[in-house]
Amino acid sequence: MDFHRTRFLMIGKSYRWDISLIIPPMFEFNLVARQDNARAGTFQTPHGELRTPVFAPVGTQATVKTLTPDQLEDLGASLVLSNTYHLYLRPGDELVAEMGGLHEFMQWPQPLLTDSGGYQVFSLSDTRKIDDDGVTFKSHVDGSTHRFTPERSIQIQKNLGADIIMVFDECSDPNDRDYTRIAMERTHRWAERSLQAHRRTDQALFGIVQGGVDLDLRVKSAEFISSLPFPGIAIGGLSVGETKAEMHATLDVVTPLLPENKPRYLMGVGTPEDLIQGIARGIDIFDCVLPTRLARHNAAFSSEGRLNLMNAVYARDPRPIDETCGCYTCRTFTRAYIRHLISAKESLAGTLLSIHNLHTMISLVNEIRAAIIEGTFESKISLWLEQWHGNAERVKMKADQ
Amino acid sequence: MDFHRTRFLMIGKSYRWDISLIIPPMFEFNLVARQDNARAGTFQTPHGELRTPVFAPVGTQATVKTLTPDQLEDLGASLVLSNTYHLYLRPGDELVAEMGGLHEFMQWPQPLLTDSGGYQVFSLSDTRKIDDDGVTFKSHVDGSTHRFTPERSIQIQKNLGADIIMVFDECSDPNDRDYTRIAMERTHRWAERSLQAHRRTDQALFGIVQGGVDLDLRVKSAEFISSLPFPGIAIGGLSVGETKAEMHATLDVVTPLLPENKPRYLMGVGTPEDLIQGIARGIDIFDCVLPTRLARHNAAFSSEGRLNLMNAVYARDPRPIDETCGCYTCRTFTRAYIRHLISAKESLAGTLLSIHNLHTMISLVNEIRAAIIEGTFESKISLWLEQWHGNAERVKMKADQ
Repeated sequence: MDFHRTRFLMIGKSYRWDISLIIPPMFEFNLVARQDNARAGTFQTPHGELRTPVFAPVGTQATVKTLTPDQLEDLGASLVLSNTYHLYLRPGDELVAEMGGLHEFMQWPQPLLTDSGGYQVFSLSDTRKIDDDGVTFKSHVDGSTHRFTPERSIQIQKNLGADIIMVFDECSDPNDRDYTRIAMERTHRWAERSLQAHRRTDQALFGIVQGGVDLDLRVKSAEFISSLPFPGIAIGGLSVGETKAEMHATLDVVTPLLPENKPRYLMGVGTPEDLIQGIARGIDIFDCVLPTRLARHNAAFSSEGRLNLMNAVYARDPRPIDETCGCYTCRTFTRAYIRHLISAKESLAGTLLSIHNLHTMISLVNEIRAAIIEGTFESKISLWLEQWHGNAERVKMKADQ
Repeated sequence: MDFHRTRFLMIGKSYRWDISLIIPPMFEFNLVARQDNARAGTFQTPHGELRTPVFAPVGTQATVKTLTPDQLEDLGASLVLSNTYHLYLRPGDELVAEMGGLHEFMQWPQPLLTDSGGYQVFSLSDTRKIDDDGVTFKSHVDGSTHRFTPERSIQIQKNLGADIIMVFDECSDPNDRDYTRIAMERTHRWAERSLQAHRRTDQALFGIVQGGVDLDLRVKSAEFISSLPFPGIAIGGLSVGETKAEMHATLDVVTPLLPENKPRYLMGVGTPEDLIQGIARGIDIFDCVLPTRLARHNAAFSSEGRLNLMNAVYARDPRPIDETCGCYTCRTFTRAYIRHLISAKESLAGTLLSIHNLHTMISLVNEIRAAIIEGTFESKISLWLEQWHGNAERVKMKADQ
């Protein structure tokens, strides 16, 4: 890496080490390779270098459900996402700050990302009232009333202390085009206010492009958000009810407008197929609850297509979930055993399926990254799409309660 | 170890290796040290040597709840108990046999023990009808009717394939002394029938002493069971409603009557205090659901006494559960974090508490074993009893459903 090279600078009359080149500049994004629109890169954070493309498991309540941090590291996770809305309500961002911040609290030593809470306020709260200043909502935990503004969201995320934090935005129904414009314009004003409120130099604040599936709005939003000094840019408002074709068309329009030298993050997406399609369109960062949520519903990704391990056909099946998979679950246990655990309502089933599903996503992005570096990405796309096609079915993506 | 020493035997006219001294004889129990009645030993099994005293975590349904086998090994477990009644009903002993036996099915590489199903038939089944030949009962899973006899229990345990298996016995209410005699006599006849039915030479069949809290019956039972060629002897019918004093008096009468050269197993016991008291009375093997059951009820053993981590007082407590503990949970997480997981209904709480509670029991028996070998056991008893006193409260011991 260039930034590991050291050199002397003349400062006053003497030469000194140029520290900025010894210690990698914070939040520097470097392209390692690209093939057509697909990119392989590195992103420097206070908790280590992220190799992109990267898939982030979701740890909604400061834990990736059913897994210890040791198990997460073993299965290859690097970036983990946690939800500001949930942590604000329980245990409270001030408590997390008092305990040394989210890394220390949940004992995740690698990079963390928090969302702004915007999406959850709109999707989980029973009643909410939005105005140009912010949102008043009721807690899904106890019904108490709370208010988020861009400034409040940044303050909460400051207390949580993740490496990557997000601007407060409004994610609207993509099918309501008139309202989508209003929400997008509000999101833009909130992006500026979030930037103004942001102080911690050890947190990278990402902007968010909105605009639903209206390509004109997306262009406007991509241009506006790109004009602001964010070290990374997210694309929000996808995988919320639009078609796959609409998602792809939106990405095709948005990513060419984003700066080359900043990471692009596709929020809340998706299936193995979505990862392949997203990377092909220039996306670097993904997160999704799908692997752990499927695990709780007894389902596993596999190169044979998605399996429901509760199915009686697996009762005496001595094979691993996926014979091509190298995860702890597949190296160790049979389908018959996992089916027994599900049938006996043993929580170990969820643990083993979470390990497998997360490992599948993470090893898929790693395989894709290697192919981009080798220059074989384009030639492998159709193979991957075929291999993972049976896992492509969309599920409603909503943060875990 | 003596049995690792090799020597030549004259066989016919030539010297040959004495194989019995190269490969440890199966199920040989050797005393390594003793102090007063307390014993430290080794017990050879087809899945390795057990160092006694040993505490066995309970894996009722072919899984120690919430833990992977890797986590169990990391916390120091060796022997694991699983329940014949549960595995017979679900997934079925024949399915387990087809999958290569219980070790292979649950991927536990170290010694396994199965109980006979007797205790669960009496404690879990809604309706049961006992006669001299066996017991007819209804499944707690689906209400279907089943019948266990000594022969059937041995056959099921043969299919499961644990290293240590148990005779089919009747565990009666210790407060009903007249019935206790009848149950004990039936248990003796069933012990003989279990022995007769036992074929697999790679399974050690243990006899069970019954007799409730009637010391005369206990003497009779200890003498009778000791007269049969079991490689190990269990004491059943304790920790089922009698007082601590009654349990101690029973052990004081029974263990002196048992053969020195066989391991003694106190079934379903108990608390840290029970372990110390049991070892002082000559017990070598213990099992209990307490550590994992307490974990599911948010409770942790600690040298400060038992803690309920749901308590609001721990919300901002930056200490580990027990500052004297070296388990993964205590090395890694604060009370505040565990309390948050409980409050947020995250299953990781159960995993972390199970790791801690099991590690506590296992490191306590290891510490006791080392003291017996060093000759410091007697001088440390009062210290241990004081240290673990706050964890002594009895809970109803019933196998997990």
